[in-house]
Amino acid sequence: MTQPFDIIGKTVPKRDGAEKVTGRTRYLHDLVLPRLAHGKILRARYPHARIVRIDTSRARALPGVLAVLTGDDVEPQPFGFAKDQVALKRRKVRCIRDEVAAVAAETPEIAEGALALIDVEYEELAAVFDPRAALEPGAPLVHEELGTNAHHLQYQFTRGDVDRAFAEAAAVVEDTYTLNFVTPACLGTMVAIADWDAADTLTMWSTTQVPFLYQRDLAAALGITGDRVRVLQPPIGGNFGRGLDLYPIDVIAALLARRVRRPVKIEFDRVEEFIACPTREPCAIRLRTAADRDGRLLARAAHVMIDNGAYTSWGSTTPSVMLSTVAGLYRVPNVRFDTTIVYTNNPYSGSMRGYGNPESTFAVESQMDELAERLGIDPLELRRRNATKPGDVNPQGFVITSFAMLECLDAAAEEIRKDPPPLRSGWKRGVGYAGMFHVGGGARVYRSDGCGAIVKLDDFGRVTLLTGATEIGQGSDTVLAMIVAETLGVPIERVDVVNSDTSVRPWDVGTHASRTTFVAGNAARLAAEKVKAQLLEMAAAELEEPAARLDVKGGFVFVKGEPQQRLPYAEVARAGHFRHHGRVLVAEAFYDPPTAMLDKDFQGNISAAYTCAVQAALLDVDPETGTVEVRRVASAHDVGRALNPGAAEGQVHGGIHMGLGYALTEHLVVAEGQVLTQSFMDYAVLKADAMPEIVVRLIETVDQEGPFGAKGLGESGVIPVAAAVANAIKNAIGIRFTELPITPARVRAALAAHGAAKDGR
Amino acid sequence: MTQPFDIIGKTVPKRDGAEKVTGRTRYLHDLVLPRLAHGKILRARYPHARIVRIDTSRARALPGVLAVLTGDDVEPQPFGFAKDQVALKRRKVRCIRDEVAAVAAETPEIAEGALALIDVEYEELAAVFDPRAALEPGAPLVHEELGTNAHHLQYQFTRGDVDRAFAEAAAVVEDTYTLNFVTPACLGTMVAIADWDAADTLTMWSTTQVPFLYQRDLAAALGITGDRVRVLQPPIGGNFGRGLDLYPIDVIAALLARRVRRPVKIEFDRVEEFIACPTREPCAIRLRTAADRDGRLLARAAHVMIDNGAYTSWGSTTPSVMLSTVAGLYRVPNVRFDTTIVYTNNPYSGSMRGYGNPESTFAVESQMDELAERLGIDPLELRRRNATKPGDVNPQGFVITSFAMLECLDAAAEEIRKDPPPLRSGWKRGVGYAGMFHVGGGARVYRSDGCGAIVKLDDFGRVTLLTGATEIGQGSDTVLAMIVAETLGVPIERVDVVNSDTSVRPWDVGTHASRTTFVAGNAARLAAEKVKAQLLEMAAAELEEPAARLDVKGGFVFVKGEPQQRLPYAEVARAGHFRHHGRVLVAEAFYDPPTAMLDKDFQGNISAAYTCAVQAALLDVDPETGTVEVRRVASAHDVGRALNPGAAEGQVHGGIHMGLGYALTEHLVVAEGQVLTQSFMDYAVLKADAMPEIVVRLIETVDQEGPFGAKGLGESGVIPVAAAVANAIKNAIGIRFTELPITPARVRAALAAHGAAKDGR
Repeated sequence: MTQPFDIIGKTVPKRDGAEKVTGRTRYLHDLVLPRLAHGKILRARYPHARIVRIDTSRARALPGVLAVLTGDDVEPQPFGFAKDQVALKRRKVRCIRDEVAAVAAETPEIAEGALALIDVEYEELAAVFDPRAALEPGAPLVHEELGTNAHHLQYQFTRGDVDRAFAEAAAVVEDTYTLNFVTPACLGTMVAIADWDAADTLTMWSTTQVPFLYQRDLAAALGITGDRVRVLQPPIGGNFGRGLDLYPIDVIAALLARRVRRPVKIEFDRVEEFIACPTREPCAIRLRTAADRDGRLLARAAHVMIDNGAYTSWGSTTPSVMLSTVAGLYRVPNVRFDTTIVYTNNPYSGSMRGYGNPESTFAVESQMDELAERLGIDPLELRRRNATKPGDVNPQGFVITSFAMLECLDAAAEEIRKDPPPLRSGWKRGVGYAGMFHVGGGARVYRSDGCGAIVKLDDFGRVTLLTGATEIGQGSDTVLAMIVAETLGVPIERVDVVNSDTSVRPWDVGTHASRTTFVAGNAARLAAEKVKAQLLEMAAAELEEPAARLDVKGGFVFVKGEPQQRLPYAEVARAGHFRHHGRVLVAEAFYDPPTAMLDKDFQGNISAAYTCAVQAALLDVDPETGTVEVRRVASAHDVGRALNPGAAEGQVHGGIHMGLGYALTEHLVVAEGQVLTQSFMDYAVLKADAMPEIVVRLIETVDQEGPFGAKGLGESGVIPVAAAVANAIKNAIGIRFTELPITPARVRAALAAHGAAKDGR
Repeated sequence: MTQPFDIIGKTVPKRDGAEKVTGRTRYLHDLVLPRLAHGKILRARYPHARIVRIDTSRARALPGVLAVLTGDDVEPQPFGFAKDQVALKRRKVRCIRDEVAAVAAETPEIAEGALALIDVEYEELAAVFDPRAALEPGAPLVHEELGTNAHHLQYQFTRGDVDRAFAEAAAVVEDTYTLNFVTPACLGTMVAIADWDAADTLTMWSTTQVPFLYQRDLAAALGITGDRVRVLQPPIGGNFGRGLDLYPIDVIAALLARRVRRPVKIEFDRVEEFIACPTREPCAIRLRTAADRDGRLLARAAHVMIDNGAYTSWGSTTPSVMLSTVAGLYRVPNVRFDTTIVYTNNPYSGSMRGYGNPESTFAVESQMDELAERLGIDPLELRRRNATKPGDVNPQGFVITSFAMLECLDAAAEEIRKDPPPLRSGWKRGVGYAGMFHVGGGARVYRSDGCGAIVKLDDFGRVTLLTGATEIGQGSDTVLAMIVAETLGVPIERVDVVNSDTSVRPWDVGTHASRTTFVAGNAARLAAEKVKAQLLEMAAAELEEPAARLDVKGGFVFVKGEPQQRLPYAEVARAGHFRHHGRVLVAEAFYDPPTAMLDKDFQGNISAAYTCAVQAALLDVDPETGTVEVRRVASAHDVGRALNPGAAEGQVHGGIHMGLGYALTEHLVVAEGQVLTQSFMDYAVLKADAMPEIVVRLIETVDQEGPFGAKGLGESGVIPVAAAVANAIKNAIGIRFTELPITPARVRAALAAHGAAKDGR
């Protein structure tokens, strides 16, 4: 495809890259303020216990301790999705994350020392760690006042005649898929710094990725109005959904700072990060899929049981996305979906990249292969026959516009078949496929899904974009700079992106749902177009041509058809400014995609564009050891347009890395409510040398609504991996794994059992 | 006067006040960055010498030293008003401020130690410290390549037939007024922090007060383009004109940082601040004034000789303002003005509050009293007869609109006469008056005198003003917030002002010429009016009334005439945002006053408004000790409108404090090119308990162009003080002092000489 662009479509290095790899990035962790005090949190000793008494007197007496707070010292302001927790717990603790007391001191060491001097007397209570057990009559209650452990949250959806479809099906497959705790394992732990000024305005430096929602929620949790909170976001070391909610760390930092009238910093150490960083939710997905004899899907029925843990954060809301996959990954006319969400005394979960979709895709795509096998149809062919196509409106009312599922299937298949690496003797090889379906044009989860942008072009030709968008390492600063540079026709180096201060930037929902390039990109483009119009108007005076005859490209304003008639754009800006009745170039725009919130029946066109991907995994299994070695992942993505191809590939690489960990190695072990995984010795994030060859194919469908045709890509890479790997393992050794991660121990055990079963046959 | 305002005209505490008095302000001095290196500058040992050799080897070898730079290590990029200096001097030094070498090290102590290890071999040259001597044939040349010490800068102005006017005058007075070095004595010394990022963009944290000019000039001095420089301005401890130019500290910090690839901080200690902070220029003003027998001014002729020092900064350009006073303070039809500006081996001067006007007003107002005495007219009456009035166009073409000189004369006279304090026995009492004339509506010194503003109103009802204006402690953040709050009809507490980052804020000339309230205030008002219009449009939908029928006040949008029909403004903003096709409230404006630059003949209406003030000093002199004790200063100012009366009074108080020091105590002693004053033990800034009673009268003329009628006030307080004090001393003891400061030693010596003269008569 010929691309008439100077900058869009060419790889531009990520702006934060050089600083990061040379160790120069100033992370939030590095921030020290004059008079900074250091906060530490004392957590529960038991997953479920009554707090009988807290004696903080010895801690308070420790020299260097500035304040010790317990739940009794502060107004309890419930917060969170279900307003079911307070920052400092009172009367009882419900999970081992629970914050029982907090200390501010002159140094982190003193604060840590003070924690050890806080004497908490507990009366241990019977606890419940399994959601099924939690629903039994007489089970210990996590929140007594609710009278049950069943959560009021429920996601129910029905479309078509599901029972009839199952009854008439040629093939039905059914299984339960079990997903365990994993954690985003950000290299930079969570940090919050709180500072109240003399006018009682709170400045928070935070690892949040939704600054404006955080501003609102934190204010509510402190009993103040949102206008008293300013949120600053220095660079952080990863987020992956961790920063999508308000957590006690933030509220406690603000409470301590308010108490000691000094800035207070709380920084998780690694152990604390494993315990208290929000995880991906553990769940069990019961799924049935029905197809006719040609392999055409007839129906799906799913039931998801989620271990909510002790309190409610975004983890328990992921069924909304699981539903999208059950109803939307391939054409399926009849769908039923339901959930059971249960309080337990386990830690609670937040959102994590993909947000339910890796989980449900694992179930759905495992069953696509099972169906193919059952019907004797090639798995790729089965997927082709069911592929969603542009023009479809899916059971939830999602309107599919650009959509390249078929092309993705072909591309992944083509790439995975090329020059296979040699197979070692004794190893078994398998190839597996999985597709995915995801929002690609924002997701109207709130009444606004918008983002604002202000573009300013100064006398020096420097362009500043003030964007609502939040950079968490995903590359948004770079791609937004590209969009502005391309729109304005100026060199990318001269575009600055400013986005870390709620006082300065316009509103945005935040970084989630792969929405930033699409939504913030459109806002940036619109604002830049307005500045361009102003610039051409200024140039009209200088070049003595009507603005309509002018354009700007490569840093020059020129007369269309007479490109030698030109002026450097910065000169135009200067001339327009340094004169009587001069002006400067500033414009703003707000983009809110043309979408709808889901209604109570989970119907509504939630995104302005949808995207798909297909991944193929080629892997070898060593039956002796159970080792699974992934040799190649081919990943084909409908990206609308690849604005920054290198960064787009990088997003996919990162997603595959996270997805392979989910599939094969990562497991945050929680036993009897205790988090046993406490270091990267235990939590097996894949190292660089364990990564397979990755081949990325970016399919450009040029979406009608996306900026320059682009769609979201931030989560796509992680979503299909586990399913593709499980399908490849099945292909290699004939065993279907329905629980993650598929560790060597599990493979060996399954092979042994399988062998025993065969032997016994 | 009834003021139909909620906020304007009521005293609002300065926003930075509480933080400053409680020690919480984070000054630029407090800023430490990860990997920060510390820079120190080695200055010349002699005021004029050839640099024979610089051996930096021992300094470089000192552990902890990161770099040592001399002029030979860097590209020489001349900078400054006359492009007559480089940051690190080569071949020769011309004054003891001269930067010979610079060190970056791990700590300031190591850097200081390294300076002592730099071995500079000098060949001392004959030097010249007196401008008259410097013009003698054969005088040592400061810049040999110029062939003369006479500066090419010259300010020549003639209007009318001056010689004839003098020939026909009933009275002519003539004298020479001698003004010495003073320094702004900021409690916060000068600081520069430079940091180059991986993309070779320079971030400077600076004490500048003209960030956008600084951006341009610093870039040029580094051989890069302005778009590679970002300027940040944390709070600083005073500026008073010090930050109006680029100085070697800034360039050297950037050069060191570029060399060591780390951020580098240079922070002057107090001794260095006395030596290298730009001073008020030393000058001799030869002035003649002619009047008819009724005391009507006929002509003035002035010649100003300025000791330019070794290089040219703003100090040598102050004659442009001196001329305005000679031609504009009172009606005077015939004016001649000329200058001689001379290079010497003294330190060079920058701009300082009042910018030539305290100097010329000292001369002009001393002569008004001398004329009154000569003609036997009451000094106040003489001034009344000559007062400039609205509608005047002065000899330079300044168009006088609002102007309350007569009212100021009356108010000062009234206040100084009230309840005089008791006079101690043996002391002599005097009362003296002085007026002043100054720009009050910006000053078009550059082709643009504009300022930009962006106003954003968020979902929480918080309003952010992004302004070009620079807060240097003068209170601009507070008054701009008031202007926005009043315009928008929202509480002042909900308006935030952001103004410390050139990447974020729109262009502005900078803080000088008392222009910020007027120019930045108008820009803020215009932007706020646009946001208000947007808000009313949104509210029209909610209230089902046309926007034209709506207004906003006290935080509510209401129907005019039906004030109970109302909605909180934040609710309107939220409703307008959280809906389909929602938007956020952002608007921008650029205000450039309707003025002209002075032409080559120094003609042109440079300001959109002019202002005046009259001060009266009541003081007692102890003939025994020569002590002058000022008992009261009454200060009456045409402020257009007092937007924040308390802050306006505070500006005047600060000006009087600085003016009294200039008049009586402050003297930066420079002898043989050496700065002998090195601490606040030597440099006698007046302490709080030495301050007289101050009575301020703010006269409101409601200027047609000013924001809510306001005019500039930042410099007015300092300008007439020395003249009023000298006139009062003359009134008390009959002696005319024509040199500042009028120290007890000088008073005693003059009294002795006067007595001897009388005795000898």
